[in-house]
Amino acid sequence: MYVLYHAWRSSASRRVRLCLAEKGLAFESRLIDLARMEHHAPAFLKLNPNGVIPLLVLADGRSLYESGTICEYIDETHPEPPLRPADAFGRAAMRNWIRHVDGLIGNLIVFNWAHSMAKVATQWSDAELAEKLKNVPSKERREAWLRTARKPYTEEERAEARDKLTVGLLDRMEAMLAAGARGHGARDEGVWLLGARYSIADIAAVPFIKRLDEEIAPHEITAAKHPRVHAWWQAIQARPAFAAARIGPFSET
Amino acid sequence: MYVLYHAWRSSASRRVRLCLAEKGLAFESRLIDLARMEHHAPAFLKLNPNGVIPLLVLADGRSLYESGTICEYIDETHPEPPLRPADAFGRAAMRNWIRHVDGLIGNLIVFNWAHSMAKVATQWSDAELAEKLKNVPSKERREAWLRTARKPYTEEERAEARDKLTVGLLDRMEAMLAAGARGHGARDEGVWLLGARYSIADIAAVPFIKRLDEEIAPHEITAAKHPRVHAWWQAIQARPAFAAARIGPFSET
Repeated sequence: MYVLYHAWRSSASRRVRLCLAEKGLAFESRLIDLARMEHHAPAFLKLNPNGVIPLLVLADGRSLYESGTICEYIDETHPEPPLRPADAFGRAAMRNWIRHVDGLIGNLIVFNWAHSMAKVATQWSDAELAEKLKNVPSKERREAWLRTARKPYTEEERAEARDKLTVGLLDRMEAMLAAGARGHGARDEGVWLLGARYSIADIAAVPFIKRLDEEIAPHEITAAKHPRVHAWWQAIQARPAFAAARIGPFSET
Repeated sequence: MYVLYHAWRSSASRRVRLCLAEKGLAFESRLIDLARMEHHAPAFLKLNPNGVIPLLVLADGRSLYESGTICEYIDETHPEPPLRPADAFGRAAMRNWIRHVDGLIGNLIVFNWAHSMAKVATQWSDAELAEKLKNVPSKERREAWLRTARKPYTEEERAEARDKLTVGLLDRMEAMLAAGARGHGARDEGVWLLGARYSIADIAAVPFIKRLDEEIAPHEITAAKHPRVHAWWQAIQARPAFAAARIGPFSET
């Protein structure tokens, strides 16, 4: 059985749980507390020197990181039901889309880290903060921790991040879903981001849309503003895998 | 036949040309002048709204961007000779490696843009520079253009970038090649980054190693410092595809 190192609220972890749920695959859950920086602690770095979750440990002890890579690996090794387009061009489009969504994560962090991460980080003394920042490998994440601990993002910065998510994600998804509908006809077949087949491209967007819908820009995910994204989001939440993956509200989980 | 929009010195373009050469695939060459920002000009944005090269246009008119994605697409549609590991875990490792190398591109730019890009950019008036920066979509690239045009990277910054490339690329490659040698035995089978089979993982590193070897850190690519990378680099340059892909010196091409 798989062992999954993850966190309930981590966007990348949510993708992998959703992928496993769609495949009906069980896993042994090992929770990592991001606010306590367990992913940068020696015990976890021994498992994944890159210090990121999710980490999927296979039955033979080898392990994989990066949610997009993990999901594609799961689909290659457990082909049913398929979660990738049947053609090479579609798979290429899927990979570029995942990469594009990944590139927007900084805008999500502006909102996501203001919750439980901030609760913990604002309590650190200056000495504790300095000590903790030493363990964070990337410059972007060090900056995000510093902001979360000491200098919350301004309304202007939040507005800018919201705009980038609206244009980079919602507007693009609306266009992709419109193209899919033109190509595939009947609406009740389900229209997904890459056309008729639900895929890892859809999975990649789910943790973002969840947060946009519950806090960041609920007014944008409506039949009036982004009708196709709105319908897509209803269809996503109706899937049994969505409940199984425990993609709950940020304020509670 | 493929149409490839590319530049001789662009690292991502070099990867795709190398991949095409390994497959023995011809392409119609369309050069994009990066120093003149042709990739951000309306004519090219009509072809690729993302404003990046290389862009591979297929026979049916559809097109693909992102060098890693393009190379994998080429391998999926032209399987011989194979340029991906035969197993799913190996393909996952390949994708994570490409992503890791992509993440180092900022360190390469510090050196690469000091050549022909700087020659052009330092001539722009302040008004021209401001006008040109408007067309650059990413913050990182706007910063890189600004530095190239007005405030060349300091020796300290160059040293930092060199270190990141040494640790993130050369040291990691040395370890990967050592692991491959342990797993596969006979040295004369060829030991590549993911083991016995030359793959897109090797291709992804080539444009970086070329620049490290010719300018950035030639003293590191030696039998004394990184013996396995040194041998790998000799083997890479001996491949007929290397010559066909025209990965020439930066000062001349």
